[in-house]
Amino acid sequence: MLDKDRLRRAQDRMRDQGIDAYLILTHDDYIYFFGEDRFQPRAIVPAMGLPIIVTFIGEEDEVKRSIGVEDARVFGTVGQQIKDVVGVMREMMGGKESMTVGVQMWFNTPAFLLTLFQRANPKVRVVDIAPVMDELRMIKDEGEIALIRRASQIAAAGIETAAQCLRPGTTENAVGAEIEYAMRKAGGNGVATPVFVNSGVRSGWLHGTTSHKEIEVGDLVVVDVVPRYKGYCANMTRTFVIGPPTAEQRAMFETYRRAQAAGIEALRPGVRNRDIDTAAQEVFAASGYGDLYVSGISHGIGLDFEELPRPTIHPADSRVELREKMAVTVGHSVLSVPGVGGVRIEDTFHLTDEGPERLTAYDLDFELDAD
Amino acid sequence: MLDKDRLRRAQDRMRDQGIDAYLILTHDDYIYFFGEDRFQPRAIVPAMGLPIIVTFIGEEDEVKRSIGVEDARVFGTVGQQIKDVVGVMREMMGGKESMTVGVQMWFNTPAFLLTLFQRANPKVRVVDIAPVMDELRMIKDEGEIALIRRASQIAAAGIETAAQCLRPGTTENAVGAEIEYAMRKAGGNGVATPVFVNSGVRSGWLHGTTSHKEIEVGDLVVVDVVPRYKGYCANMTRTFVIGPPTAEQRAMFETYRRAQAAGIEALRPGVRNRDIDTAAQEVFAASGYGDLYVSGISHGIGLDFEELPRPTIHPADSRVELREKMAVTVGHSVLSVPGVGGVRIEDTFHLTDEGPERLTAYDLDFELDAD
Repeated sequence: MLDKDRLRRAQDRMRDQGIDAYLILTHDDYIYFFGEDRFQPRAIVPAMGLPIIVTFIGEEDEVKRSIGVEDARVFGTVGQQIKDVVGVMREMMGGKESMTVGVQMWFNTPAFLLTLFQRANPKVRVVDIAPVMDELRMIKDEGEIALIRRASQIAAAGIETAAQCLRPGTTENAVGAEIEYAMRKAGGNGVATPVFVNSGVRSGWLHGTTSHKEIEVGDLVVVDVVPRYKGYCANMTRTFVIGPPTAEQRAMFETYRRAQAAGIEALRPGVRNRDIDTAAQEVFAASGYGDLYVSGISHGIGLDFEELPRPTIHPADSRVELREKMAVTVGHSVLSVPGVGGVRIEDTFHLTDEGPERLTAYDLDFELDAD
Repeated sequence: MLDKDRLRRAQDRMRDQGIDAYLILTHDDYIYFFGEDRFQPRAIVPAMGLPIIVTFIGEEDEVKRSIGVEDARVFGTVGQQIKDVVGVMREMMGGKESMTVGVQMWFNTPAFLLTLFQRANPKVRVVDIAPVMDELRMIKDEGEIALIRRASQIAAAGIETAAQCLRPGTTENAVGAEIEYAMRKAGGNGVATPVFVNSGVRSGWLHGTTSHKEIEVGDLVVVDVVPRYKGYCANMTRTFVIGPPTAEQRAMFETYRRAQAAGIEALRPGVRNRDIDTAAQEVFAASGYGDLYVSGISHGIGLDFEELPRPTIHPADSRVELREKMAVTVGHSVLSVPGVGGVRIEDTFHLTDEGPERLTAYDLDFELDAD
């Protein structure tokens, strides 16, 4: 159902910013307002009054009933979808010379859709909706934290499965299959990013995936999962070694663990995102890994797997002040040693007035059986 | 490894079109040229000479070795990635006043990345790379068909699992878990679009997902899977009914089966994409479902789950002539009857000079046990 409180707060901010309407084209904000998802989430939120949904003719009755919104423009062909949006814009403009429409301008907004929209609506000034939505979404309500908590349990089910399945001779892809299956069985609705099972030198990659590579004795293996539960994400990463670690692998792992702990120690309402980085960086530097440190160890999480602050994508976000009721991770950066591999340990936290609550509080052994 | 033949053909077309360089930002074209994938696929293909890879410092040696390209610009922080790209552009421009750079402008190119690139390179004229890449990728070589064939077997493993698992009382999400697991176990590398298990009235949705809804006796269920194998997709959809169908459900199913058969009958080198539509539409109209028909029953498939021609996204593509060595699907449109549900039967084909070869040739019963 439409969340009227969230709608009201968004509309207040829209009017403050001089935005006449928000054209929703992405899943996250559609779920945020309407509590459910569509494959093609399309809606127009005016600065005053109720949203207008744009949906397929076969889904009209159900959409109206489940969202509780009366004004749905339906299309029978996909081309008509654009015409519907243009039509609504014309109605809203009335006789006005121009209007200002906010759009999310991030990874999930396709470049060509935006170009198409601007070409079809030459009198519309398009602006980034981030100043409206980022601030709202950054502070989570209790319902949102409950969903992230549930997603965190699902993430843990995935990582525990990885620890059971990682043996020499199996492949990254086979382990990935078991992880995704375990997370689905635990109630998850798929993943926000592909599961990483990065083994051997691949563990040092900045990002990853699963490949047909076999797991070998002596491999460092980074397993990173971001399952969704009803749209909300949790992020958990653990590093394993297959059989006894070398001295260097052990040193990398212990350093990362202490760096993450220092970051968590620094995490409290009132600090800035970069303070978490500084705390971790000091540990890496003291252990001789300072040059290899990739900044941006902590990011926000919610309906997007990286949302404000997301300093590795938008460096200025490192200045964002962390506040009560935020959900953030610590452990995003990889410690990558060329020729050896990499280590990451990442957890998801709920920031309360008393400090951080670790939602992915599962401690697992670094060393796995090589037999 | 870098595919030098594909590179040469792309560069020929780039020079014909007056494009000085292609900035790769998406997985599909990265795999097309280099035969492997990265989480952040970034490369610059000049109109003459070898490509330049932009990659993370921890991945440099491996990237150079596996791709066989010597020029890799490495970054230690994500912000530097943009600087690397800008730096390469400056080198390429030399003393020139401006240059033309192609970028893929489709669903997978984030709007903000393009904006950022243009702001950082004001002298660069950005154009759509589609006229270069679409034509190349539309015609598949033998290696590509082999990968799509393998992906088709993986798709069939998913659909057969659905037929075994769809029983009253289980949920769409639980069935989705079994499908994804089966496809992974069969060798798949994840999915190109979320698995659809659309049951009851949800079967009439234009698109879908899996939800926590329970499967009920009498439900129509549309199951749509698009697994990947080494980047390449196959698309297969089947519709089931839980227990004996009603007369209307049976009529919808039989109509769709005949419409798909008519589309397949029309599918041969030399026809246009819209001819497939016309053949199917005649069957729907003769059965009284003409008004409910959503045009665009056939689309191309390969490294993207919908690639040229993709008439439901870009209506002008309905004029594209189908040629030998293309891979296309037939059965993309849903027959959606409001209040009842929907039916779809979709298969992936390799178009040879002798006609279409169905790569997803698996016939399954419409009616499933309700016990």
